[in-house]
Amino acid sequence: MQKSLSVYDSDGSTFAPLVVIELVSETKEEAIAWLLNRVRDKQQDGGDGDGFLSMAECQYIIKHGLDNLRAKDEAHVPGYPKMKLYPGKSVIRRMQSKGILVQVFPLHEKEELKRLSFSWFKKIKLSFQPLDDIRHYFGEGMALYFGFLEYFTLALIPMALIGIPYYLFDWEDYDKFTVFAGFNLVWCTVILELWKRLSASLAYGWGTLSRKKAFEEPRPGFHGVLGVNPVTGRAEPLYSNAKRQLRIYLLSVPFVLLCLYLSLYVMMIYFDMEGWALMIHDEEPTFWTGLLLFIPSIIYAVVIEIMNLIYRYAAEFLTGWENHRLESTFQNHLVLKVLVFNFFNCFASLFYIAFVMQDMVLLRQSLATLLITSQILNQIMEAFLPYWLQRRRNKKAHKRMIKTMEDKELPLSEQVKLEADMSTYLGTFDDYLELFLLFGYVSLFSCVYPLAAVLVVLNNVTEVYSDAFKMCKVFKRPFSEPAANIGVWQLAFEAMSVIAVVTNCALIGMSPQVKSYFPESETQLILWVVGFEHFLLASKFILTFVIPDVPKHIQIKLSRLEFESLEALKKRVRKPQTSVWISWVYEVYG
Amino acid sequence: MQKSLSVYDSDGSTFAPLVVIELVSETKEEAIAWLLNRVRDKQQDGGDGDGFLSMAECQYIIKHGLDNLRAKDEAHVPGYPKMKLYPGKSVIRRMQSKGILVQVFPLHEKEELKRLSFSWFKKIKLSFQPLDDIRHYFGEGMALYFGFLEYFTLALIPMALIGIPYYLFDWEDYDKFTVFAGFNLVWCTVILELWKRLSASLAYGWGTLSRKKAFEEPRPGFHGVLGVNPVTGRAEPLYSNAKRQLRIYLLSVPFVLLCLYLSLYVMMIYFDMEGWALMIHDEEPTFWTGLLLFIPSIIYAVVIEIMNLIYRYAAEFLTGWENHRLESTFQNHLVLKVLVFNFFNCFASLFYIAFVMQDMVLLRQSLATLLITSQILNQIMEAFLPYWLQRRRNKKAHKRMIKTMEDKELPLSEQVKLEADMSTYLGTFDDYLELFLLFGYVSLFSCVYPLAAVLVVLNNVTEVYSDAFKMCKVFKRPFSEPAANIGVWQLAFEAMSVIAVVTNCALIGMSPQVKSYFPESETQLILWVVGFEHFLLASKFILTFVIPDVPKHIQIKLSRLEFESLEALKKRVRKPQTSVWISWVYEVYG
Repeated sequence: MQKSLSVYDSDGSTFAPLVVIELVSETKEEAIAWLLNRVRDKQQDGGDGDGFLSMAECQYIIKHGLDNLRAKDEAHVPGYPKMKLYPGKSVIRRMQSKGILVQVFPLHEKEELKRLSFSWFKKIKLSFQPLDDIRHYFGEGMALYFGFLEYFTLALIPMALIGIPYYLFDWEDYDKFTVFAGFNLVWCTVILELWKRLSASLAYGWGTLSRKKAFEEPRPGFHGVLGVNPVTGRAEPLYSNAKRQLRIYLLSVPFVLLCLYLSLYVMMIYFDMEGWALMIHDEEPTFWTGLLLFIPSIIYAVVIEIMNLIYRYAAEFLTGWENHRLESTFQNHLVLKVLVFNFFNCFASLFYIAFVMQDMVLLRQSLATLLITSQILNQIMEAFLPYWLQRRRNKKAHKRMIKTMEDKELPLSEQVKLEADMSTYLGTFDDYLELFLLFGYVSLFSCVYPLAAVLVVLNNVTEVYSDAFKMCKVFKRPFSEPAANIGVWQLAFEAMSVIAVVTNCALIGMSPQVKSYFPESETQLILWVVGFEHFLLASKFILTFVIPDVPKHIQIKLSRLEFESLEALKKRVRKPQTSVWISWVYEVYG
Repeated sequence: MQKSLSVYDSDGSTFAPLVVIELVSETKEEAIAWLLNRVRDKQQDGGDGDGFLSMAECQYIIKHGLDNLRAKDEAHVPGYPKMKLYPGKSVIRRMQSKGILVQVFPLHEKEELKRLSFSWFKKIKLSFQPLDDIRHYFGEGMALYFGFLEYFTLALIPMALIGIPYYLFDWEDYDKFTVFAGFNLVWCTVILELWKRLSASLAYGWGTLSRKKAFEEPRPGFHGVLGVNPVTGRAEPLYSNAKRQLRIYLLSVPFVLLCLYLSLYVMMIYFDMEGWALMIHDEEPTFWTGLLLFIPSIIYAVVIEIMNLIYRYAAEFLTGWENHRLESTFQNHLVLKVLVFNFFNCFASLFYIAFVMQDMVLLRQSLATLLITSQILNQIMEAFLPYWLQRRRNKKAHKRMIKTMEDKELPLSEQVKLEADMSTYLGTFDDYLELFLLFGYVSLFSCVYPLAAVLVVLNNVTEVYSDAFKMCKVFKRPFSEPAANIGVWQLAFEAMSVIAVVTNCALIGMSPQVKSYFPESETQLILWVVGFEHFLLASKFILTFVIPDVPKHIQIKLSRLEFESLEALKKRVRKPQTSVWISWVYEVYG
């Protein structure tokens, strides 16, 4: 594929390469020379980061450097007159879009990877994940995801345990019923709050807790006219917020609404199929017609997954086109778009069955089918599909790669070629999204289908291993991302738990067992349920307010840090403080 | 009263005194000498603050110094063997409690005060308050209170204007009704959000916006065993949190509950009186019996005010006894105690009438009576009572004082004596509390009594002037308090606006006009109302979330500040950043 292969270094000595920039074979020499020069411009003198920084951090720094390689005065990429450049345009991005630059990716470190994957998923005995090692190799963002996955799984176990007897002996009398729902609701709130504290301690340990958001550089995709950043005073592309708002409200919002309408339409078709299957079953009920009853839900589940997938890419494109300056705001808008749709797409039918048709049997059945099908599909999509794709793409290489993981004699060029062929990991977004939807299946209708928690726990246990496997074996090594928390997902999960309160209370109110307690007047029943719901919501918010987000011992450490920096500042700028105040004191005494 | 009067200064020269420490006549010389020495110990060399700091700031610094004058090794106050001292005990506090030290207060500055009071309330034409001057003379805390008072008044005007026609033509048909309530609810949310932004801009202008909470010194009342502060590493009294929790849960909480029970009991007596008055009126209705109908509400209103007053002091004592380390936590606990009781005490009867008796006529009547009576009482308690007390306490001095405000020839000793006799301002707490309750009267049952907003606006307009007057003429000059926002009160007002959503929706649901829309089934009605309420609550939280708390231009300024400090730090500690990463880059090219 490439003619020559040379290890480049400023002083010509050999070294351990960290990041690979792959260019197409017939790239013009001048373009390469120019790119190297521009890259070298970014270089500043300073101490060597070896040892001081983890490998992941070094790679992050390189990525950051490349992403912020922006055109200044070049009209076009040297050697490619058609490849226009304008000030502020990301060079790498443009070369990528024009197809000169194939990809930029960090290299795996065989030794470390081997150690990591052993302690992570090769051991037989079940144990906690080596979060610190994961963070060291993949960065904080990834480590927080796996930490959350593990925490979430453990946190669901009590719900699962309590759920089992409810399912086995189907307890459905009033008190047990409400107790179960009540427990779930409080539990959801508590685990989300405790996660905040746990993630705070993790982030503190990794030194990312008090990361300043304000200093985020513009994201790679961001383009605009070169101007002056009001905060830093540096030259940087700017893009008017008004334009962005226009794009959001005139295109993104209508698009999302359209998609919601479509998903509603599909739902209606599903209900037609449902009724049709039921009709056939009722005509002459056989074992096969019995199976047939599940077919519509399964098909619907598959369709939902497909729609989610397509929408996912559309949303990413749209949000990119909205041209947000910061990665974080980009993420927020993307997450919002995707969440609204996925939530609607996955749960609309369940809401319809629960509150319009009020058919609890069907609700339970289709909840189970949706949950199980989507889990199976996800496992396939996530681990096996990329794996299989890759095999197909490059059978030999794949075999060799598996081998490589064992022997470390393979020459560098080989390793590079192998990893270049591995498929790319698209970030933790989809993994979080999946957890979010699972959380929805567990919490929203928990009191109708107590087994949901059990299924989710089982799913997550396998999830941990399949995710770990795919990170180490299937995907290219991703660039590490520093992170202080799971960001907007915390909010998303909390919102879900609030909705869960409403739905569960409504379900309790609708259950015949509860209805039987208020035979005389339905009004009484509803008022009671509403009161109960308001009480739950209130106590939820009080709980959120009472439990501090950062553990005490870390708060103390943080404020000590602040205090010391302030003291250091004082030493430099001497302010007149308690200075000469005695000379102002004036006493009246006898 | 005092034998000799001497202007004390380290180098003997005369100067403008800022703060007065009044000791009883027969104080022992050695105690005075000791106190002066201890005070002088606090002195540090440094630039003179004149000009650089406002007078209010200088006085704050002095107060801060005196408050943190803590006993080290002294066993007792010299000359007073009985007056025990132990390490960490606030000296001033102990001398005050033992009655040697009468009071510590800052002096008024006649010239400035004259200018301020002219631009504040002596001008005939209505205008905005001179917040910056207020801040300069009384400090940020006071300025923020008056800013909030003014903003709150202006913000209520639209509600008042809309309310008037509803009252005059008593519109009560469904749509208008819900429109009015709906508007009020959204309006309440919006004004509270906008206030956050306004106060942020004010605080930024005064340089208190990004004040660090972490560096609060222990409050004067705080006592404990001298230990080492984990944050600053300084010697400082410490008090175990466990003990504090015990005190809170074993004494404070039960006390509050007891008070709530009492207030409930009083409420029941009120309803008995109500029924009794009604009975008399029904026997032979005359003009006088017509008046009699209002008597119970008036009496009840007076009783409520008295109970609030007594409880207020009890709560302050209890919270002080809980021995919180920081002034802020002390305030939070005090506010929580007082709010819970006052809310219950003022509104319990209205809730009972509205939702248990469901008697809208009585609700409207007693709401009006409570509101008006409490307003009148407050005006009396706040401005006239202290004024009158002071007259009684010192008729001559008072007359002279009024004169003093005009001529500036009065000798210092005279001014000191005069101001020593003025009554003490107890802080903005009660003023905020009053606004909070007024806000409750406006928002909770707004759709029953649309005129409430009008009354509150009128009340506030007079309030501005009476408060301004009492600050400048009636009270001693208070020590200034730096503040970045109205603190816990923001939260209190928001909580109130949430409760208002619930109550108003319930009232709408109960109104006959709305009931008439659902003649067939009450269930339908309730479901609709609940749905509407949930929609309102949801949009409320979204609104709170969407509107940024700090205006954009100030966010930019703040982050620029942060950025610059970070840059300064970088210069000192050189970290290897994008440094030598080029030497790690590795290309595959043809």
